[in-house]
Amino acid sequence: MSQHYFIKLIESAASALTSAPFHSTREIEIPSPEQLCAYIDHTLLKPDATTEEILTLCQEAKRYQFAAVCVAPHWVPLCVEQMAENSMPVCSVVGFPLGASTSENKALEAEELIALGANEIDMVLNISRLKDKEYTYVYEDILQVVASGRGKIVKVILETCLLTEQEKIAACVLSKEAGAHFVKTSTGFGRAGATVEDVALLRQVVGHEMGVKASGGIRDYETAVAMIKAGATRIGTSSGVMMTA
Amino acid sequence: MSQHYFIKLIESAASALTSAPFHSTREIEIPSPEQLCAYIDHTLLKPDATTEEILTLCQEAKRYQFAAVCVAPHWVPLCVEQMAENSMPVCSVVGFPLGASTSENKALEAEELIALGANEIDMVLNISRLKDKEYTYVYEDILQVVASGRGKIVKVILETCLLTEQEKIAACVLSKEAGAHFVKTSTGFGRAGATVEDVALLRQVVGHEMGVKASGGIRDYETAVAMIKAGATRIGTSSGVMMTA
Repeated sequence: MSQHYFIKLIESAASALTSAPFHSTREIEIPSPEQLCAYIDHTLLKPDATTEEILTLCQEAKRYQFAAVCVAPHWVPLCVEQMAENSMPVCSVVGFPLGASTSENKALEAEELIALGANEIDMVLNISRLKDKEYTYVYEDILQVVASGRGKIVKVILETCLLTEQEKIAACVLSKEAGAHFVKTSTGFGRAGATVEDVALLRQVVGHEMGVKASGGIRDYETAVAMIKAGATRIGTSSGVMMTA
Repeated sequence: MSQHYFIKLIESAASALTSAPFHSTREIEIPSPEQLCAYIDHTLLKPDATTEEILTLCQEAKRYQFAAVCVAPHWVPLCVEQMAENSMPVCSVVGFPLGASTSENKALEAEELIALGANEIDMVLNISRLKDKEYTYVYEDILQVVASGRGKIVKVILETCLLTEQEKIAACVLSKEAGAHFVKTSTGFGRAGATVEDVALLRQVVGHEMGVKASGGIRDYETAVAMIKAGATRIGTSSGVMMTA
């Protein structure tokens, strides 16, 4: 795929956006606190998490029937073991949280995580290359992780707080072209997290064939519901227990 | 190496510390602003750095004769090319900034960076495993990166702002045992950076056979000099030009 091809595709997505403001044709049902559980990636990514905290995370995920647990790579074996009996998905992260590792290393990391039993991969795209408009680089960076994922769900983290609207649109187009399954707003380590406006923008650009994961700073039921109304199909949060209780 | 062996070693380092407060037998010369250049890893690790900013970093490093440039993995080929004629070292990072990738991935990342031409590797240790007192894990995590480094300088980032004094001592002991060349205070992405007290502690535990790199929040000449007086032999900063001008 050439740079020229991507530029055309991004321009076309941007102009579609301007000419036809998005109105969902789908009714979005507002989930009850209990129904919200199915949206939640129960997440613990802080670098000083202990075994005890990870075990608690897994127990809570099983009790509340969250969508998945989301943990750092070195915790995957423990979580896979913990979640096995309930066959609940384990999600882990690639190139996290800066997105600045090499494409080769991201692909190897995804491959290892899948081999360890992870079911979903949240990768950070290369923000610098996106800013430099190196679209082929950004596309191939994602493509290699999708290939390593061998059909498992791959979510592309955009870190929206660092991007312009044009860059957000480009990131969505490239993620979709590369065959990723979700776009995701934030790492939770940036200076800001998900906004309703960003979730709506991402949903509008990717259409209905991809998931949108809102993450970063979502700490209560009302905020989670606002994200879902804007088009989110998954919520990444460490506050899942509190917001669904 | 067994857990028991490491516990003894760490206990002995901790008690040596209590019984004999450190007094350097070496005179530390205060560097002039110009002399300070030789201490500085000229650093740009923000995830949205552009090609232009990286090229400027390299030009400044050559002009000021800094110790090295320190950049994210995907910038290594560009920096190696830029620095080649002056044979200035290129430093990059492994498992950065959370230290939470698998040991296998850290080793592969170090291996790739060296193959791409990097001369120095700053790796983040596994903070969670250190807190869980899994000393053999932490040691082997470092050891594998040192092995991948094939003799190149490996610095172990402790992220001191997340550690207790006992954990800082343990991290120094394990880094030294694993054959790393430096301990380094901070990633610059944590909630705090280097302190004079931490640099002095690290220096006291590792003795004179290892380097100590102070990093995170060092933005002026006076602070850099205070770190050097406390025992730092390398300064990681993005403000190198300002503080030596």
